[in-house]
Amino acid sequence: MDFSHINEQGRAKMIDVSEKKATKRQAVAKGSVKVNSNTMQLIKSGGIKKGDVLAVAQVAGIMAAKKTSDIIPMCHPLALNGIDIEFDCMDTEILIKATVKCKGVTGVEMEALTAVSAAALTIYDMCKAVQRDIEISDIMLIYKEGGKSGVFRK
Amino acid sequence: MDFSHINEQGRAKMIDVSEKKATKRQAVAKGSVKVNSNTMQLIKSGGIKKGDVLAVAQVAGIMAAKKTSDIIPMCHPLALNGIDIEFDCMDTEILIKATVKCKGVTGVEMEALTAVSAAALTIYDMCKAVQRDIEISDIMLIYKEGGKSGVFRK
Amino acid sequence: MDFSHINEQGRAKMIDVSEKKATKRQAVAKGSVKVNSNTMQLIKSGGIKKGDVLAVAQVAGIMAAKKTSDIIPMCHPLALNGIDIEFDCMDTEILIKATVKCKGVTGVEMEALTAVSAAALTIYDMCKAVQRDIEISDIMLIYKEGGKSGVFRK
Amino acid sequence: MDFSHINEQGRAKMIDVSEKKATKRQAVAKGSVKVNSNTMQLIKSGGIKKGDVLAVAQVAGIMAAKKTSDIIPMCHPLALNGIDIEFDCMDTEILIKATVKCKGVTGVEMEALTAVSAAALTIYDMCKAVQRDIEISDIMLIYKEGGKSGVFRK
Amino acid sequence: MDFSHINEQGRAKMIDVSEKKATKRQAVAKGSVKVNSNTMQLIKSGGIKKGDVLAVAQVAGIMAAKKTSDIIPMCHPLALNGIDIEFDCMDTEILIKATVKCKGVTGVEMEALTAVSAAALTIYDMCKAVQRDIEISDIMLIYKEGGKSGVFRK
Amino acid sequence: MDFSHINEQGRAKMIDVSEKKATKRQAVAKGSVKVNSNTMQLIKSGGIKKGDVLAVAQVAGIMAAKKTSDIIPMCHPLALNGIDIEFDCMDTEILIKATVKCKGVTGVEMEALTAVSAAALTIYDMCKAVQRDIEISDIMLIYKEGGKSGVFRK
Repeated sequence: MDFSHINEQGRAKMIDVSEKKATKRQAVAKGSVKVNSNTMQLIKSGGIKKGDVLAVAQVAGIMAAKKTSDIIPMCHPLALNGIDIEFDCMDTEILIKATVKCKGVTGVEMEALTAVSAAALTIYDMCKAVQRDIEISDIMLIYKEGGKSGVFRK
Repeated sequence: MDFSHINEQGRAKMIDVSEKKATKRQAVAKGSVKVNSNTMQLIKSGGIKKGDVLAVAQVAGIMAAKKTSDIIPMCHPLALNGIDIEFDCMDTEILIKATVKCKGVTGVEMEALTAVSAAALTIYDMCKAVQRDIEISDIMLIYKEGGKSGVFRK
Repeated sequence: MDFSHINEQGRAKMIDVSEKKATKRQAVAKGSVKVNSNTMQLIKSGGIKKGDVLAVAQVAGIMAAKKTSDIIPMCHPLALNGIDIEFDCMDTEILIKATVKCKGVTGVEMEALTAVSAAALTIYDMCKAVQRDIEISDIMLIYKEGGKSGVFRK
Repeated sequence: MDFSHINEQGRAKMIDVSEKKATKRQAVAKGSVKVNSNTMQLIKSGGIKKGDVLAVAQVAGIMAAKKTSDIIPMCHPLALNGIDIEFDCMDTEILIKATVKCKGVTGVEMEALTAVSAAALTIYDMCKAVQRDIEISDIMLIYKEGGKSGVFRK
Repeated sequence: MDFSHINEQGRAKMIDVSEKKATKRQAVAKGSVKVNSNTMQLIKSGGIKKGDVLAVAQVAGIMAAKKTSDIIPMCHPLALNGIDIEFDCMDTEILIKATVKCKGVTGVEMEALTAVSAAALTIYDMCKAVQRDIEISDIMLIYKEGGKSGVFRK
Repeated sequence: MDFSHINEQGRAKMIDVSEKKATKRQAVAKGSVKVNSNTMQLIKSGGIKKGDVLAVAQVAGIMAAKKTSDIIPMCHPLALNGIDIEFDCMDTEILIKATVKCKGVTGVEMEALTAVSAAALTIYDMCKAVQRDIEISDIMLIYKEGGKSGVFRK
């Protein structure tokens, strides 16, 4: 007796991409961490007790990008070719930008977004002892190329 | 010859919490995923090809909370007691709320924030084929209790 | 003095597949979870307190398939192209079927078997509070294609 | 507008065990791997090219037990105190038994079952080149003590 | 019929520590990375293209310490309280020292040794493009306290 | 305002290898574990209570090689084709040699070195109850082929 219809709502799958071509792919994502000026001052002067905030966040973002398919359930495992993360510190905002490259059958948007998210969470963790109301915001894809849908630019 | 000063900037450490008391700890974090009304309609009606978006995001958030100390470099490993994630779907916004509980020597803010972030990234991944400009925003701690600093409420 | 013969029994290796061709590969595995009719009723009606049993099991199976080479020591890491899991609920038995696809130099039998096993263990975990003597059984490969040994059908 | 009822089916949670007492816990699980007599002969004589089948399976089972909360979504992370795996080779069947101990707020049934499953999958992987129709069966809990529900014996 | 004697050699177990007391534990390990003076110069001046060598090595060592029980098969999972890594750069040698603290039923020697090893491997990886014959050496425990065997000092 | 220069020291990246060709790659690394003659005797006779030291170390080394990109921050993920570890037991020294093969755009030196390191740490862990001053030493690359820089032989 077939009851498979019971979990049609939950019918999650890692979509079959066997028929897709392996092409060069790139994605760039960004996000912001909002801190107060005291916290920003401590970050810039190396006064955060837990360590060099941006150096640690950079490593965290790169390592998380490599773990993306182990964090995001329906994401395909990919052999990434390159990951680069930049920080732009403004008055009360740290802008994070992550660029990921790969040659494969699916895009690397999730890897770039995961890199930004992990870097942001790490900045939060490094600074939370001095500021309790840090916010992470505006995480989005800003550029993507490769694959059938071609170029996307925000 | 001692050159340890070279990496003073990078002197990251997982802070020693041996002297702290094990107490009951709880943290609640929230975040938003901004989608357009077409995407929201597809999510609600089960029309997303990759699967039941919120069911998958819920599992992803809970599993990521358990991996927090493997994603955030200076975060302490903790044996979590409970993790709960709720979704609130408004017109063009999905509000995510994660509650984490533990009995330990450090708080669980990072676990709650990581749960929200992973759930948000998963919603993004499940829906990206139908909408290219989804945004993740306003990730923050809204409540915390336990430990020396007591209660925090946003 | 050479004593390498001491561990000839233990001479495990991840076999060198450098000379093999990358071809399209697919494997289908199945397994059963035996529950009593009260448990089956609760699963179907959404009455299990821990959550939607089959939705969670589906995610668990797919995520475990991606981790196969980190669970099975001599298994080769592979970039999987597709993973799909189906459930068939009969009176007192849930039949699980997992299909995995890849283009690579080794087959994906272990990925399919691991997906089935993890989904089965998850059903067990979700239901163990209501039934103490659940059994997992009859895990086997039912179909395989690709590679030198061609098609296998049980 | 509140649409949380949409995912009531999928309302999975890692149940809050904060109110439970930490007690000594133990679980014993078993399972079988069915092989033909040629394969059994090769296992016993060390004739499997991939390595010492049972030695590798033992390590795989122990390592997988430690990963249980990263494989089974709603499982609580635990600091395990002891893991032991035994094999009993009969004519065409390898009986696997795993004993897991812990002092904690939840039981270790899933750790014991996961250890058996991973050991079984590893035996399958080590032998699949010589036998195509190996089966894994009869995975179940045979003993459990500790916690409110006390002793369970099958 | 009992053939368990076949794998007596392979009878690995994660030793049962249920009867041991939870006490404060600390371990300090060290190791060396031998580089030539050109490589040392590049490390100190920030001239390594891959990034700030010691900052990255520090994060890698701390993150690896947390993963120790997932790398070393018979190692017990522990909730570490603190991890600190120091570097001492001499003419052609980088001395690495890792201190790990915990309150638990087993010691943290493996965590300290794993931290040193991962930091050393990371320095190697960051510099290998400029020097092909880097060596990692003299990895050992230099101090340990806690547990029944008390203090060890090298 | 651009403050990115603040973290120039920490500007770690996973170098973009998109322009490199996929070629056959191989690396061989070695390392030593120094034990006293009592410990060596116990290893050879199977008298170590924790299990068959070299069998467990072999599995640990192979599994760690597959995790290299999750341990070493700037390392590229690779689909390895083969991993083999050999042990050579001399009077008071165990020589470990690991050979790793791959077809890819970067070399596998880190995989081979990580395999040796993990095997060495495992031998240490298995024997530390009987000897407190074990040392791991002389970890280095002894051979490498493939890629633009061609063959390296120590």
